[in-house]
Parts: sequence; structure tokens; C-alpha cells
Amino acid sequence: MSKAFITTPSDREVRIERIFNAPRERVWKALTDPKLVALWWGRGNKLVIEQMVVERGGHWRFVEHSPHGVHGFEGRYREVKPIERVVRTFEWDGMPGHVAIETATLEDLGDGRTKLVSVSLFHTTQERDGMLQSGMESGVNQSYEALDQVLASL
Amino acid sequence: MSKAFITTPSDREVRIERIFNAPRERVWKALTDPKLVALWWGRGNKLVIEQMVVERGGHWRFVEHSPHGVHGFEGRYREVKPIERVVRTFEWDGMPGHVAIETATLEDLGDGRTKLVSVSLFHTTQERDGMLQSGMESGVNQSYEALDQVLASL
Repeated sequence: MSKAFITTPSDREVRIERIFNAPRERVWKALTDPKLVALWWGRGNKLVIEQMVVERGGHWRFVEHSPHGVHGFEGRYREVKPIERVVRTFEWDGMPGHVAIETATLEDLGDGRTKLVSVSLFHTTQERDGMLQSGMESGVNQSYEALDQVLASL
Repeated sequence: MSKAFITTPSDREVRIERIFNAPRERVWKALTDPKLVALWWGRGNKLVIEQMVVERGGHWRFVEHSPHGVHGFEGRYREVKPIERVVRTFEWDGMPGHVAIETATLEDLGDGRTKLVSVSLFHTTQERDGMLQSGMESGVNQSYEALDQVLASL
């Protein structure tokens, strides 16, 4: 199973790189179709997509129902360039008003695989480190393993 | 008429300082009561307050109807400490996903006047400069002059 490669290119950023065994069109669809996102983003937990308007200025809001509680996440799309790039804000209800800018880029590797690079920019190093220490790495890997299965099923 | 004193304490911040001729409780009320905010924030333009839940995690959304068009602004409260401090996010619909963190602090000057200090932190210097070049200074001064009148009427 492929793992996400996580680095910190600057003191306010986290960069995640992950290769998926599917063509770019299919990865784009799984990242932007609410019905598909509901299948993988929650890592096996029930995910309610209250809002997801994938266009510049559109809002998104997901609520994850885990055995440990209910967690809301939300933000707004800054830029949407199919099938290449999505820039959006990201905020967790538990830390309201702490906003990261998440830039996700899809690269066609030319062999039927796709590289996803996601860079999150925080307002401060402290907020970035809080995210890193929140169990982000295992959460990201669980989500992407669920995404592998969704991609294989399409 | 008092003017706002605007500085750039770092390459991602704008600081605004303004003294109001009213006690701190009254300034707090004018900043946090939607009915009062509607009277000054729009600088004479019609302002529709679609949402304004002044508590941690609450959302706000204002729509200003100016002769030049309709402008939406929104964000979320990060921290609310009556009658001292409000931290919230700030986003203009025209630049969706560009989010500043606005920290407003009220200081009782002990002579019936109140000093408001508002510091906005941006993700990048470019976003900060975009805000400075948007006519922010005259907009802020117009709003605060309208706020002077609201405070005098309370």
C-alpha cells in the first residue's frame, strides 16, 4: 500500500504527496464529486456532506461521525481548475477561525497513475505544528487508503 | 474628527488604531450588536446582516449594497471576550478563500474614551498589500466616522 510522503517546505506549510493507481480524470472525480467524497474522506466513519459547491467562492462543509464524537470541517473554494488544481480554505470546528489554505494539484504520471500534491499554508507556525501533532499523518493515510478503494471501484 | 492610525507592524499585518469618544461598554455594544453594526459598518450604504453570531465558532456575513454594486463579506469568530477582545476571520466575496485574522482589542483610556486596536494578519504579504491598496484607509475612516455618530446617539 502506498504511503503519503509528508514534508514541511517552510515554517508555515505542510506538503503531502501521494501516488494513486488511477488516471487523473478518475482521481479528480473522486476528489470533487460529493457522493464519492462521502465514501473515503471519513476513513470509514459516516460522513455527511452538508455543502460542497466546487467552484470559485463556493462553500464546503463536512461532518464526520466517529465513535469518538462528531467533527465538523468547512471552508470555501478559492480556485477550481479541472482536472488540475483546487485551492480551498480548511477549518475544523474544534479550532474555529484557524484557517489553512489547501492547494491540491493533480499530475498525470503518464503511466495510468496520478500524483496528488497537497500543500497547506497556515497563518502561523504554531497552527501548522498543531495540525501536525493532531494525528494528521495517520488520518491522511487512512483517507487515502479508502480513496484507493473508491478509485479501484470506479 | 479623529483619524485612524494605520501601520504595518510586520510584512503580513496591518494595524489600525482609533480613539472613540465613548466608554468601553458602549463601543463594545456598537461593535457586537447587529442592529448597531448595520448603522455604521456600511459607511452610509445599506448593510444587510445575514448572520452574526458573536461567540466562539459563530459565523458572520454582511452584504453591503453600494451604488457601485453588492459586496459580501464573511467569516467566523475565533474568540470573543466581552468587553475586551474579538478575534475573527475576514473574507471578501470578491477574493474568496483569501482570509485575514482580525484581532480587535478595546482599551479603556480612563477618561471616558476608548482605544480600538485592530490587527489583521494575512497568509501572505501580497494579500496584505492587496488589502492596503483596495482603498482600505478611506473605507475604515468612513466606517469609524459613522461609528462616532452611532456612539454619540446611544
